[in-house]
Amino acid sequence: METTMTAENRTKTFISPEDLLNNYLGHRGLTRRTIEAFPEEQFFSYSIGGMRPFAEMVMELLGIAAPGLKQIATGETPEFKEHFDHQNSKELILKLWDESTEEIKKYWSQIPANGWDQPISLFGQWEFPVYSQICYFLDNEIHHRGQAYVYLRSLGIEPPAFYER
Amino acid sequence: METTMTAENRTKTFISPEDLLNNYLGHRGLTRRTIEAFPEEQFFSYSIGGMRPFAEMVMELLGIAAPGLKQIATGETPEFKEHFDHQNSKELILKLWDESTEEIKKYWSQIPANGWDQPISLFGQWEFPVYSQICYFLDNEIHHRGQAYVYLRSLGIEPPAFYER
Repeated sequence: METTMTAENRTKTFISPEDLLNNYLGHRGLTRRTIEAFPEEQFFSYSIGGMRPFAEMVMELLGIAAPGLKQIATGETPEFKEHFDHQNSKELILKLWDESTEEIKKYWSQIPANGWDQPISLFGQWEFPVYSQICYFLDNEIHHRGQAYVYLRSLGIEPPAFYER
Repeated sequence: METTMTAENRTKTFISPEDLLNNYLGHRGLTRRTIEAFPEEQFFSYSIGGMRPFAEMVMELLGIAAPGLKQIATGETPEFKEHFDHQNSKELILKLWDESTEEIKKYWSQIPANGWDQPISLFGQWEFPVYSQICYFLDNEIHHRGQAYVYLRSLGIEPPAFYER
């Protein structure tokens, strides 16, 4: 935290909620293509340096973003959960991914214009303003997807182009 | 692009320029600690799956963010450059990193309140609104740093905590 905040500064716009949502949806599409690029078996099992397989990282993402936005929009605090019944099926994970994207769009539209700056204790555990929570959802997705790119490269598979959204 | 933009929507605030800068500076601190975590030799040479060593990714980041913000603030189009004289010295790269952070802060403060939404052809090559260019700087840094985490883990080194900024 190196610059000084004032109430006035906070009302200035770097990016609008609509533009941020579009940026976010572009990233979700890229992450979907990254999941698709994995061979089914390696998606659930391949690991480097003792890290989690990409499927487990994706379940973490599924557990955070849509449930988090539901809490932000409705005020109901969900339990944090990062395991889903996937039956080692990439198709099932992709279905959960698409449902999650639809939920994000739905709850996003329910957040009021003055809601982005409000503090919230996400999952009853992490207290930050809403915009900061959502930046974390996105940053965390990019972070783990970057790791998946290394997994893919080391499997001899070309990842989807990073700049295509 | 899945939602509809209007001029009115664009004036609504998801995040202010000051809050986004603080988020960005938090990420730059984390990337700095990630550079520091590498042994000097591996920083310049270690690779998985034919990817670039982290030093080369960091030079790409050095070539984009501060020069890009300089163009956004001053209107002068720089040449895109992603190689810097580093003499295989991590200390020299960290010095360039810190100078780059100071430039980002300086040029950020020169961007007018209505400047974030303006289209710009960055390096004379990529035309997008300013907010979108800056999101790309940040997303690209997170993406490559995530890859560096895999390099570190595969070298048996614990990366810095992702959530600490």
